[in-house]
Amino acid sequence: MREFENKKYWALILGGSSGLGLATAKKLAKHGLNICIVHRNPRMQQEAILREFEIIKKEGVEFKAFNSDAFKPEKRNEIIDTLKLSFGEENKIKTLVHSVAKGNLKPMVSVENNELKHDDFILTIQAMGISLYDWFKSIFDADLFAQDARVISFTSEGNTKAWQNYAAVSAAKVTLEAITRNIALEFAAHGIKANCIQAGVTDTASLRMIPGNEQIINHTLKRNPHKRLTTPEDVANAVYLLTKDEASWITGTIIPVDGGEHLR
Amino acid sequence: MREFENKKYWALILGGSSGLGLATAKKLAKHGLNICIVHRNPRMQQEAILREFEIIKKEGVEFKAFNSDAFKPEKRNEIIDTLKLSFGEENKIKTLVHSVAKGNLKPMVSVENNELKHDDFILTIQAMGISLYDWFKSIFDADLFAQDARVISFTSEGNTKAWQNYAAVSAAKVTLEAITRNIALEFAAHGIKANCIQAGVTDTASLRMIPGNEQIINHTLKRNPHKRLTTPEDVANAVYLLTKDEASWITGTIIPVDGGEHLR
Amino acid sequence: MREFENKKYWALILGGSSGLGLATAKKLAKHGLNICIVHRNPRMQQEAILREFEIIKKEGVEFKAFNSDAFKPEKRNEIIDTLKLSFGEENKIKTLVHSVAKGNLKPMVSVENNELKHDDFILTIQAMGISLYDWFKSIFDADLFAQDARVISFTSEGNTKAWQNYAAVSAAKVTLEAITRNIALEFAAHGIKANCIQAGVTDTASLRMIPGNEQIINHTLKRNPHKRLTTPEDVANAVYLLTKDEASWITGTIIPVDGGEHLR
Amino acid sequence: MREFENKKYWALILGGSSGLGLATAKKLAKHGLNICIVHRNPRMQQEAILREFEIIKKEGVEFKAFNSDAFKPEKRNEIIDTLKLSFGEENKIKTLVHSVAKGNLKPMVSVENNELKHDDFILTIQAMGISLYDWFKSIFDADLFAQDARVISFTSEGNTKAWQNYAAVSAAKVTLEAITRNIALEFAAHGIKANCIQAGVTDTASLRMIPGNEQIINHTLKRNPHKRLTTPEDVANAVYLLTKDEASWITGTIIPVDGGEHLR
Repeated sequence: MREFENKKYWALILGGSSGLGLATAKKLAKHGLNICIVHRNPRMQQEAILREFEIIKKEGVEFKAFNSDAFKPEKRNEIIDTLKLSFGEENKIKTLVHSVAKGNLKPMVSVENNELKHDDFILTIQAMGISLYDWFKSIFDADLFAQDARVISFTSEGNTKAWQNYAAVSAAKVTLEAITRNIALEFAAHGIKANCIQAGVTDTASLRMIPGNEQIINHTLKRNPHKRLTTPEDVANAVYLLTKDEASWITGTIIPVDGGEHLR
Repeated sequence: MREFENKKYWALILGGSSGLGLATAKKLAKHGLNICIVHRNPRMQQEAILREFEIIKKEGVEFKAFNSDAFKPEKRNEIIDTLKLSFGEENKIKTLVHSVAKGNLKPMVSVENNELKHDDFILTIQAMGISLYDWFKSIFDADLFAQDARVISFTSEGNTKAWQNYAAVSAAKVTLEAITRNIALEFAAHGIKANCIQAGVTDTASLRMIPGNEQIINHTLKRNPHKRLTTPEDVANAVYLLTKDEASWITGTIIPVDGGEHLR
Repeated sequence: MREFENKKYWALILGGSSGLGLATAKKLAKHGLNICIVHRNPRMQQEAILREFEIIKKEGVEFKAFNSDAFKPEKRNEIIDTLKLSFGEENKIKTLVHSVAKGNLKPMVSVENNELKHDDFILTIQAMGISLYDWFKSIFDADLFAQDARVISFTSEGNTKAWQNYAAVSAAKVTLEAITRNIALEFAAHGIKANCIQAGVTDTASLRMIPGNEQIINHTLKRNPHKRLTTPEDVANAVYLLTKDEASWITGTIIPVDGGEHLR
Repeated sequence: MREFENKKYWALILGGSSGLGLATAKKLAKHGLNICIVHRNPRMQQEAILREFEIIKKEGVEFKAFNSDAFKPEKRNEIIDTLKLSFGEENKIKTLVHSVAKGNLKPMVSVENNELKHDDFILTIQAMGISLYDWFKSIFDADLFAQDARVISFTSEGNTKAWQNYAAVSAAKVTLEAITRNIALEFAAHGIKANCIQAGVTDTASLRMIPGNEQIINHTLKRNPHKRLTTPEDVANAVYLLTKDEASWITGTIIPVDGGEHLR
């Protein structure tokens, strides 16, 4: 029997239709966690996404997906209410995964009219940072967390580095980390463990959309001691490890999952 | 002659009417920097503040103060315009100091109706974090920075720690640090150096307003290797050091100024 | 079937007769790893230790123990030769665990005649730091590592903090970390992954021997968000996670395993 | 009058005949500190070194130099005794600077017969790490430190990174940092402040001797936000800042002095 089978455990994955989030959904389903994905995609991508979701369902776990704007409080409440209803007394969220990539990449100074503005910071910090707290709190208030639940968010080396155009995302990532740390502290009495995974440069659609990504990729291939990019599956593996019972004393940390990329 | 005398250098201090900001104004004035303070105080405090400002003026430097809401773009623009006009071609801002303490201290979970909300994060991050970027950018765009200018912001050990009620301020501090780092990077070509000072627990009016501050103070007196709190003057001294020519290769750093408090 | 059963994988545990090392041996044996323990104990403790070893053997794995001075090159070579011979072609070391606690706790300044000396640093750094390299290198040179092998060493928060009497151990711990990082880098091409676990204050015999340990324990019970000490089993669990296939992209890191103790 | 003139303050600089140490001597002499240099150079370099020393003497400060093996206890005691005698009651050491570069750069694994060995770690850690403690302690025990004295040591980004061939130096640097932190803690009651400066890649003779230094230099020129290497004078400037009265609340820190190189 699989590890989490018959436990009526769910993973709720914000941003689970692609990249790290989708790989995480597949990995956790393989070990028997039921999967709830919240995502936001235009209709034209829907078909491809449904094919991915079929792969998850084939693991024989329960599966729900909401294509919805996860940043609107009323949409969030709707989803939480739906889950509450369908979960009954026994189903609970074991792992909340925050895999939201929606930020503004702009320079602080530029001759073109695309400089980073106050509102770019706000929007990026809300989407990639504070949304973790919003969802976490709604789930907690609805009493949907399992005993010994896990909160896992994804950060990057931009938490201590500074990269051209990355200021707003950097601020969002460190905000996400601060929120994760405070959840680890303030909800310790409720058995919740919260950690960040600091992924290396990962081969995703998001990466391919960053201007100059070929240069980033080439530099990473040289820099990484294992001479390859991080894959979504590498990160999903780490989420799985952190979900296991044996990880219950690990909380409030930032764990690099990057094949040693941070070493140089 | 004093170090910065006759250079027509100014320090612009956001939050300069008390605490770290005021001490910094006094210290820099002593060395010949002209002082511009932006602050926000109710009328009943005005008299006491004016007495402090008199001390600064006695150093024989030029002095301006704006009692104004520094977070409103139109107020900011007004002040910048006023400075631009009065500065002429020769006066420039050598040091921009961000000493804004205006955050929401609330628990993430509580039986009382005072839990931390989405908007608490936004307001605190705007006031204590993003406002540095807003002011920095307005000054830069108005061409008011001196050659080899300095940007200095104040952070706390809450950048890696988690304290009850401190989540929003923690998020604001790490945002402030991220912005400071990106300024250091993206404006290096413009000669600007940007650093954070991580003050120890400092004896200020702000500290006295934190619930449970006596306990914080007692713990700090035991913990600090030098068995005293940090004073505003300790921090002002560090701002002065970072303003000196000899500090021009120090940028993008977070420097603890705490008598070694972070060591245990 | 158990996870590592029939793989002919071994864990070699330096300092495996008590505390973190022993708990690790038990945990890994439970999942089917064969166990080799190198330890150094006087005869009077031997009986109690053998009882512990019986518990490991009951897991049905192969077991070897060497009561020997692990810091002497000739003893090390003897043990490696013995393993080489008995392992044949198929048995390999999957996980090398360094759990050596043998350091000098002395003050830098004291009126008594017990001040920290040059040789205290040397001996402590050799025993708790460089010995990892010595063993690692001997095993590597003897071609005893499995594919995708793991090196795991134990550090403490004393890597960034400073505690009275702890200077030599602190130096040894950061040396151990530096060696672990360089192994992660320089042996990446050989598939080896190396990480440090930063345990919280752990309830072990070693802790009880530190002067003032009651005070450390009381402080920790207040400080730890989960209001208990770290147990050897907490740490053993983390070693197990890092040994799993899913951890193969985690290398060169320092992972706190402390229930969030480092957060405040 | 110069800042430290007539105070009978000395700077003792270990490794002061070249690079960071020599630049520091010149800078501190310029501000009126008397200079004592301990160095180890072969006779053939003596003439060039004496020319450098003449530059220091021209500042009109007192000057002593000892060409001696600073790592031998008897040589150290001899020098301390000589200073003690000549200092009388009034002369004191204000700043102790550790600028010793003498380490083994070897790979952990290599087909050539030049692999890093146990003794390489020991020798490098002794020379570049523990020697700070030896000298510090001898000076302290001889009561030669001034009130509010400063201990300053030089580290590198290799304290958290891993570079090929750098393992022993990395271990020595983190040992040096650990010692510096414990001095900051354990001698706080004696008014001593201890800090590390983390220099960027600096253009020195030591750098030019590292195999592959052209590549390091080229990479640094691209990476550094200010597009130049760190100079010995940049670092000397920071030592000067840390020696000033205004730095007396800064202790136990690691301060990057690298033009923001660590940011990316």
